[in-house]
Amino acid sequence: MYDIVIIGGGPAGLSASIYSKRFGLSTLLIEKFGIGGQAILTDIVENYPGFPEGIKGSELVNKMEEQAKKFGVEFLIDEVLGVEIDNEIKKTKTNSSIYESDGLIIATGVNPKKLDIPGEKEFTGKGVSYCAICDAFLYKNKDVLVVGGGDSAIVEALYLTNFANKVYIIHRRDKLRAAQYLQEKAFKNSKIEFIFNSILKEIKGEKRVEKVIIQNIKEDRIYELNINGVFIYIGLTPNSNLFKDKINLDENGFIITDSEMRTNEKFVYAIGDVRKKELRQIITACADGAIAANTFCKDFSDKC
Amino acid sequence: MYDIVIIGGGPAGLSASIYSKRFGLSTLLIEKFGIGGQAILTDIVENYPGFPEGIKGSELVNKMEEQAKKFGVEFLIDEVLGVEIDNEIKKTKTNSSIYESDGLIIATGVNPKKLDIPGEKEFTGKGVSYCAICDAFLYKNKDVLVVGGGDSAIVEALYLTNFANKVYIIHRRDKLRAAQYLQEKAFKNSKIEFIFNSILKEIKGEKRVEKVIIQNIKEDRIYELNINGVFIYIGLTPNSNLFKDKINLDENGFIITDSEMRTNEKFVYAIGDVRKKELRQIITACADGAIAANTFCKDFSDKC
Repeated sequence: MYDIVIIGGGPAGLSASIYSKRFGLSTLLIEKFGIGGQAILTDIVENYPGFPEGIKGSELVNKMEEQAKKFGVEFLIDEVLGVEIDNEIKKTKTNSSIYESDGLIIATGVNPKKLDIPGEKEFTGKGVSYCAICDAFLYKNKDVLVVGGGDSAIVEALYLTNFANKVYIIHRRDKLRAAQYLQEKAFKNSKIEFIFNSILKEIKGEKRVEKVIIQNIKEDRIYELNINGVFIYIGLTPNSNLFKDKINLDENGFIITDSEMRTNEKFVYAIGDVRKKELRQIITACADGAIAANTFCKDFSDKC
Repeated sequence: MYDIVIIGGGPAGLSASIYSKRFGLSTLLIEKFGIGGQAILTDIVENYPGFPEGIKGSELVNKMEEQAKKFGVEFLIDEVLGVEIDNEIKKTKTNSSIYESDGLIIATGVNPKKLDIPGEKEFTGKGVSYCAICDAFLYKNKDVLVVGGGDSAIVEALYLTNFANKVYIIHRRDKLRAAQYLQEKAFKNSKIEFIFNSILKEIKGEKRVEKVIIQNIKEDRIYELNINGVFIYIGLTPNSNLFKDKINLDENGFIITDSEMRTNEKFVYAIGDVRKKELRQIITACADGAIAANTFCKDFSDKC
C-alpha cells in the first residue's frame, strides 16, 4: 500500500514523484518502457530554464530520475493493464502484480502519430522530429519538410519559418484542415511552399536526413526532394485508453483537470502531456507534477 | 519599441524571457535590484527537477540569466515607477526612461513580510528562512521556531514536523488565526509546542542561528530559547502596487489570471509568485513564464 502511485516516468511523473516524496508520502512510479517519456526524443533541450548550454533530453531526464531515486522514490518498470479508481483505495494492475494506493497520478503522456514509412524511425533525432519548438533552432537557413494539414502542422511550419530557409508542407489532400486564419498566414508566408495531393514514401540519408521520396497521388508521380529535416505533425495520441469511461476526457482523449490537476475522480490527478492544456513542454510537465503532488498532499494527508 | 517587456527578473521573468526570445519576439526584462528574486534566498534548491545534487538558489538563477542572455534577451536594472496598459501600446516608465511594447508580462513576485528584529537579516539563509518547503530538509532532528499564527505559519509548522525534532510556534496573541482544522492538526501533533502571548525580540548565533530571545508580553518576561532555525511566516506581500486599479487583484493583492496567464487587460500577463495561485515554487514560476510567452505569441503575433 502506497500513499501515491504515479503511472508514467516522463518529466511530469518524475517531478510529481520528487515532490510527493519530499512531502513525506510513500511513492511508487510505474513506467512501461524506460524512464524519460517524449523528452528523450529531443536531441538538445535548449529552453528548460537552468541549462544555458542546453542539455540532451535523455541526460535531463536521467538527472530527474537520479533526483527521485535519491529522495527514495520506488521505481517499477512494468506495464499497467488496468486501474480501479472508483473506490477509496485505488488499484493499479500491472503485468506482475496489483498495487494499492490512496492517490493516483496519471502521467502517461502522448505519442506522436507515426507515418510508418522507411527511414522515419531510423532518423528520429537525426533530422526527423515531432516538435518544432524543441528543434527548429537546429535548422537555421536549412530546408525542412512538414507533414500534415491540421492546425498543428501549420503552426509548426509557421514557427519553422523563423529559422529555416524554406519550409515545405506536404499534405495528402488538395486543401488543408487547419483553421482559416492559420491557412491565410501560411499562404502569405513566402518561405512556405505547399505540396498538395502528395504523400511521403521514404526518408533517406547517410548519418542525418538528406532527402525524401514523395508521391503525388493525383498524378501518380514519384520524385525526390533534398531536405535537411522532416517534421511530422499528423497528430498526438494521448495515452489515455486505460482511463476511458473512468474519468472525463475531452473529444481528443486528453484528460480534463482543474488548475490544481484534479480529475473528476477523487484523489486521481492527471499531469503533463496527457492532460488537456495549451503548452506541452518539459517545464510545464514538471510544474504539473509539483502541483499534483501538492494538491494530493493537501487534499488527503496530514503532511501538508 | 519591444514586442514584450517583462517586469521582474526572478525565475518566472527569466523563463518568460527565454521562451519569448525563442519565439523570435524582441524582449526587454526590467529588474529593480538584481536578477534572481526570492529564489536567491534559498540556500540549496533540492526540488527543482534536473539537479539531483541540489543547487544553490543563486546559482540556478545565474544559469537562467546566462541562458536568457545567450538567446539575446535585453536586461535593464532599473526601477519601474509606473505603467500605462489601457492603450494598444503598453508603456513602462522607469527611473531612466519610458519603454514601449505590444505586450507586458508582470513577474514582480512577492516579499515575505519581515519581523525587523536584530539578527533577522544577518541570518537569512543561515537559519532564518521564509520557506519551509524549500529548507525543511536541512532541519532533520533539529529544533525550529515558526513565527506566526495564520494558515501559512501552521501549514509550515506541520510540514516541518516531518523533519524537525521539535517545532515551536510563537504567536503574539493567545489564540491562532489559522483555520480550525489546521489548529486541530497542530494541537494534536506531539512535536509542536505553542508559545502564546509572545514576540520574538532577537535572533542570535555565531555562524548560524543558535538561539532566540523571546518576550512574553502578558507576563512581561524575557528569556532565551536554543533553536537551530527560525521560519518567519507572518505573510507575503505581492509586489502589485503599481497595478492596483489597473488590473484585477484578489483581496490580498495577488494578480488574477486565467490558466494561460492572461490578466483582464489585453496583452498583459502575470506570472510567478505575484499571481493568485496555490503553489509558489521555482518550477511553477518557470512554467508560468513559458505559458505567458506562448499565450502572447499566439494571441498577438504571427510567429506562433
